[in-house]
Amino acid sequence: MKQPGFAFEIHKERGAARLATYTTPHGQIKTPAFVAVGTQATVKSVTPEMVRTAGIQVLFCNTYHLYLRPGAEVVAKLGGLHRFMQWDGPILTDSGGFQVFSLGAAIEHGVGKIANIFPGEVGGVESDTKRGKVARPGESMVKVEEEQVLFKSHLDGSQHLFTPEKSIAIQRALGADMILAFDECTSPLHDATYTRQSCHRTHRWAERSLRYFQESTPQHGYAQTLYGIIQGGAFRDIRVESAQVIGGMDFDGIAIGGNLGKTKQDMHAILDWSMPHLPREKPRHLLGIGDIPDIFEAVERGCDTFDCVAPTRMARNGGLHVRVDDDGTPLPKFRLNLRNARFKADPRPVMEDCICYTCQKYSRAYLRHLIHADEMLAYTLATIHNLHFIATLCADIRQALRNDTFQAMKAAWLGPLL
Amino acid sequence: MKQPGFAFEIHKERGAARLATYTTPHGQIKTPAFVAVGTQATVKSVTPEMVRTAGIQVLFCNTYHLYLRPGAEVVAKLGGLHRFMQWDGPILTDSGGFQVFSLGAAIEHGVGKIANIFPGEVGGVESDTKRGKVARPGESMVKVEEEQVLFKSHLDGSQHLFTPEKSIAIQRALGADMILAFDECTSPLHDATYTRQSCHRTHRWAERSLRYFQESTPQHGYAQTLYGIIQGGAFRDIRVESAQVIGGMDFDGIAIGGNLGKTKQDMHAILDWSMPHLPREKPRHLLGIGDIPDIFEAVERGCDTFDCVAPTRMARNGGLHVRVDDDGTPLPKFRLNLRNARFKADPRPVMEDCICYTCQKYSRAYLRHLIHADEMLAYTLATIHNLHFIATLCADIRQALRNDTFQAMKAAWLGPLL
Repeated sequence: MKQPGFAFEIHKERGAARLATYTTPHGQIKTPAFVAVGTQATVKSVTPEMVRTAGIQVLFCNTYHLYLRPGAEVVAKLGGLHRFMQWDGPILTDSGGFQVFSLGAAIEHGVGKIANIFPGEVGGVESDTKRGKVARPGESMVKVEEEQVLFKSHLDGSQHLFTPEKSIAIQRALGADMILAFDECTSPLHDATYTRQSCHRTHRWAERSLRYFQESTPQHGYAQTLYGIIQGGAFRDIRVESAQVIGGMDFDGIAIGGNLGKTKQDMHAILDWSMPHLPREKPRHLLGIGDIPDIFEAVERGCDTFDCVAPTRMARNGGLHVRVDDDGTPLPKFRLNLRNARFKADPRPVMEDCICYTCQKYSRAYLRHLIHADEMLAYTLATIHNLHFIATLCADIRQALRNDTFQAMKAAWLGPLL
Repeated sequence: MKQPGFAFEIHKERGAARLATYTTPHGQIKTPAFVAVGTQATVKSVTPEMVRTAGIQVLFCNTYHLYLRPGAEVVAKLGGLHRFMQWDGPILTDSGGFQVFSLGAAIEHGVGKIANIFPGEVGGVESDTKRGKVARPGESMVKVEEEQVLFKSHLDGSQHLFTPEKSIAIQRALGADMILAFDECTSPLHDATYTRQSCHRTHRWAERSLRYFQESTPQHGYAQTLYGIIQGGAFRDIRVESAQVIGGMDFDGIAIGGNLGKTKQDMHAILDWSMPHLPREKPRHLLGIGDIPDIFEAVERGCDTFDCVAPTRMARNGGLHVRVDDDGTPLPKFRLNLRNARFKADPRPVMEDCICYTCQKYSRAYLRHLIHADEMLAYTLATIHNLHFIATLCADIRQALRNDTFQAMKAAWLGPLL
């Protein structure tokens, strides 16, 4: 299907990698692009203007959280997410499935995305919410049935249910530009049998999501696009099947979801298996990935957009993105820990050649002081820098794709780490 | 004495109230003016640009906190407070005395400024620091001697001492435009005998502060002015004596400090007793007062500037300043509690005729959502509004003084509350 106001134009392809522009009713996304996470209809600690000035083009909000608080009907009454949060660029919402299952299997198994989320954390969202208050350790808060998923709110333990139809209805009310089909996100500890059963159910839910989407209408005066989601865990045959099935349905875009294995290599393999089966002409979103090496790997394998809490969460922990340490040493996480004593009286900006607001104005010493004093401005300034760093990286990647220098750029960034 | 780069020009007087301009090396302060509190070298949750755009002209930072963290030597090495925190307007620092004594008598007595600070809170600063970790309940962390004051850090219990000379040296290093003499702030529960002894010691400390100030030099390339502080609790004769003594010394300005009694009426009386004894030509700062009715009372009695954590602390508690409630009902605290359920889907701005960033862009419903979700942006947006509200009130008061309509303005604002 083709939605009015949307167009996905591929300018150039190099291997699987693509340089493209995704036009939406709320402006263009030059891809490859990082999608900043604004779980509760705000990118934590920054204004929309700060996000925009940092170079971020598109935001990701979480349906599960907004459904529980303030409620989709409140957002709809206020004119939809864009007006509610005063972000006039494109927005993507997820289906709620990932968080619902984070309350279930990910907690039962003590694992999250790529098996590295703290037990008890509601995975993949910008939230410090814990389930501890409303459920006993090991107790699932989720019951998955063919027709529906029953779950308890992490806020107050209240009972709720999602169906594919309800997820789409909520996302219609929220009014993001791009919305996602309802899916089950399996855990890395699920076996092949369960993962296959679940994946097939996700395919049936994809059909129900698509049907409801086609039979419903936008509520806020502009069209929306629906992305299907590929699942299949770290099992090659299930991933291939899912890519073929979802890729063959009439979605506007494709998201690669679910648990992406236990290692970075698993994640690369999952992309290698899946991506060749996807229709070339549809935009592709990689869910929950955004470490810097992963961005290069995802782009190289044909992902157009990717969201992750890493840059913003890291900022709130006092981690500031840099290319290398002051002495030229590679940093595996491209991160300075500004809590460190060596920055106590350091007059330099976080990164010498950075043009973000934070680096233009403030010293490492001041940021360190704010972090140690637990001042909110610390998180604002660190978030601005990290978003600007990632947005600049993506702009440089686009330039490299345009100039056929992507491999050289990747080698320059990641080579020292090998 | 006259400091280069400073000038205090009174444009108009109406009764005791004055319309004036205080020129400093970092720009002019049109008075009467509210001084926003930035305890730890940041106004909590907002950037300097946001503070400036809200209409705030001058900031108040706390010497005690900055001495402990990051240390005056760090701030000095980074070029002084203005460069450290990137606020290019005037700054005032206190002497550290108030916080030191908040650790002592105010805690022993379970009282703070006007007897309404929570027991255990370090009074009059924008900080959530508690002393609970480092001292037993009722145990004083302070030892006052003629020569010096010994105290323990609320951060880690480490031992420190302040003298008048050291306080001035620290404030030279921090580099605020206006600095304060070292004083002892007595508690409302201290009797006349102790209050008189303490006040006389404060006068001796004022002489030592002044002498050290005159014999030391600025460190950051511009002059500073030194304010003496009037003490005397709620005792008329002691307050009068203190006003005469401090008013007769060679300070550049006068601050009215200490405990201001147990009621608003006490505070008015203290100002009525003290202000007539102060030299007309020096600027006067009222310490720690900023509720809206108090601002009118302070201006009427001849105060030029006043600082208070109320607007910013209230913002962080979800309280947003408005003139009246939606139905025209007077609000004693000029505050809407945006946590209230009635704002859940309210599309209106906090205040219909407000031109601050927050009111121009966001609905009450969005602010309420952010507050309930404990999102940092809530505190940023609320702080912007409250600072803008207070700054606008002060601008309107200046206009009223200029137009001889101050009494009418005061009656319009406070009359409905009587």
